[in-house]
Amino acid sequence: MELWYTEKHTDSVKFSIQVDRQLYSGQSEFQRIDVFDSKEFGRFLTLDGYMMLTEKDEFIYHEMMVHVPMAVHPAVKRVLIIGGGDGGAIRELVRYPTVEHIDLVEIDELVVEVCKKHLPQTACCFNDPRVHLHFEDGLRYIRHCEDEYDLIIVDSTDPFGPGEGLFTKEFYGNCYKALKADGIMVNQHESAFYADDAIAMQRAHKRIVQSFLISKVYQAHIPTYPSGHWLFGFASKKYHPTADLNGVKWNALGLKTRYYNTRLHAGCFALPNYVEEMLRDAE
Amino acid sequence: MELWYTEKHTDSVKFSIQVDRQLYSGQSEFQRIDVFDSKEFGRFLTLDGYMMLTEKDEFIYHEMMVHVPMAVHPAVKRVLIIGGGDGGAIRELVRYPTVEHIDLVEIDELVVEVCKKHLPQTACCFNDPRVHLHFEDGLRYIRHCEDEYDLIIVDSTDPFGPGEGLFTKEFYGNCYKALKADGIMVNQHESAFYADDAIAMQRAHKRIVQSFLISKVYQAHIPTYPSGHWLFGFASKKYHPTADLNGVKWNALGLKTRYYNTRLHAGCFALPNYVEEMLRDAE
Repeated sequence: MELWYTEKHTDSVKFSIQVDRQLYSGQSEFQRIDVFDSKEFGRFLTLDGYMMLTEKDEFIYHEMMVHVPMAVHPAVKRVLIIGGGDGGAIRELVRYPTVEHIDLVEIDELVVEVCKKHLPQTACCFNDPRVHLHFEDGLRYIRHCEDEYDLIIVDSTDPFGPGEGLFTKEFYGNCYKALKADGIMVNQHESAFYADDAIAMQRAHKRIVQSFLISKVYQAHIPTYPSGHWLFGFASKKYHPTADLNGVKWNALGLKTRYYNTRLHAGCFALPNYVEEMLRDAE
Repeated sequence: MELWYTEKHTDSVKFSIQVDRQLYSGQSEFQRIDVFDSKEFGRFLTLDGYMMLTEKDEFIYHEMMVHVPMAVHPAVKRVLIIGGGDGGAIRELVRYPTVEHIDLVEIDELVVEVCKKHLPQTACCFNDPRVHLHFEDGLRYIRHCEDEYDLIIVDSTDPFGPGEGLFTKEFYGNCYKALKADGIMVNQHESAFYADDAIAMQRAHKRIVQSFLISKVYQAHIPTYPSGHWLFGFASKKYHPTADLNGVKWNALGLKTRYYNTRLHAGCFALPNYVEEMLRDAE
């Protein structure tokens, strides 16, 4: 027999992975959760059928979400992660001894439980004493935060289903308020290639630009996401993502990474013209 | 009914495009040639079933193959293209008034005929008086060239089937000989993500390094190629791909591009660590 997982990247484009076994399937209050094992990608997590991460390429997403802002901000102590129940962003963050406190606000406790059991590669560091889990709606949580965080990482699902409210103007405005005077927010930004993803990307960008003085977009190659060309938003009150990169300091930390490096940091903000045009149209 | 084209990116990974109609199917002396029409990607060409180009994303491949070396070399007059029977590289090259002579050596005349008929978006410029078509084996053609070209573009198929011999040490050595003292060669380099592609990429890189003093690799996001993360080799006798970039001069040409720009030119040579390690292992 053959067992195939298929995600429709558009109505007429499919990406399929041969599956060895389904390790978990369940329904939470919020979404359907599945974990599969595969030869090519190792284990992978889907939410409502959408690919969230695979063991083979999650390092790209998580390194780019975390190390880009960490190499710019000179002294990150308090971090808020919205979403990120797989633990990948936490894994990268706890490598920094200067980080003192991490709040992770995940709406779906079952995601964390399932990842702890089936995806130890990412869900490895929830027991770090600096990590504080809050199982509630990030949208509500952030309303009551003010001048509290150096870094906010919006590691959301796609902007449909439980992640939908996170792509609003109100939400990004509250993130701005929750950040200290030199805070940075990083946002998973979807992609520019397929029309529906591009609309979501433009919408997120437009709303972030309304709140943040400095708002730039960077890119990474993530093979298991639609088109493989994934974008992130870097929104900041003070620091510029490339002019304020402190490469010497970051490299002195001696962190071993598989995707991120400080040369690539500068390079990943150089976007193709068609993406630049979409961003300008949204601004 | 539904009609789907599927390419296996590995034995256990499939990429599928819903097809409106098959516009052409034929068998040449060298390979099977198909052209399809689709909603998402427009028309697309496959050779022996492998994706060669789609109307939606071919601009990325062709712009990156042509404008990167053209923005570095100060005076390209004579160009050799090996492969490239779809005409996309020619289309980008003839935009430069300073280019005087282009030899295109394509082993399969039927590819050019089919593209002229069904893919006018790329096969638009074969009639430019500077373009000279040679329907023969690039491997043989290049043996008799010496000190002749400013730029060689190796726009080959994958390193199996008719393109196989192009990934050899002898071939790259002959390219070196065919170039003038300050010549540049650009090579389509496969990808680093899936194991078989990575082996081909490392092999090509190793052989190019043996011939060329300056041998660097750059990347682009090409959604319809396996993993979406595609690599190109920049091999050069004199000019460095980023130190010798003349951005001011290139921008003064006023060429409108959809992917390439001179900021991205510098950025695309900043590779992820895992790719850098593979390249070092090959050297």
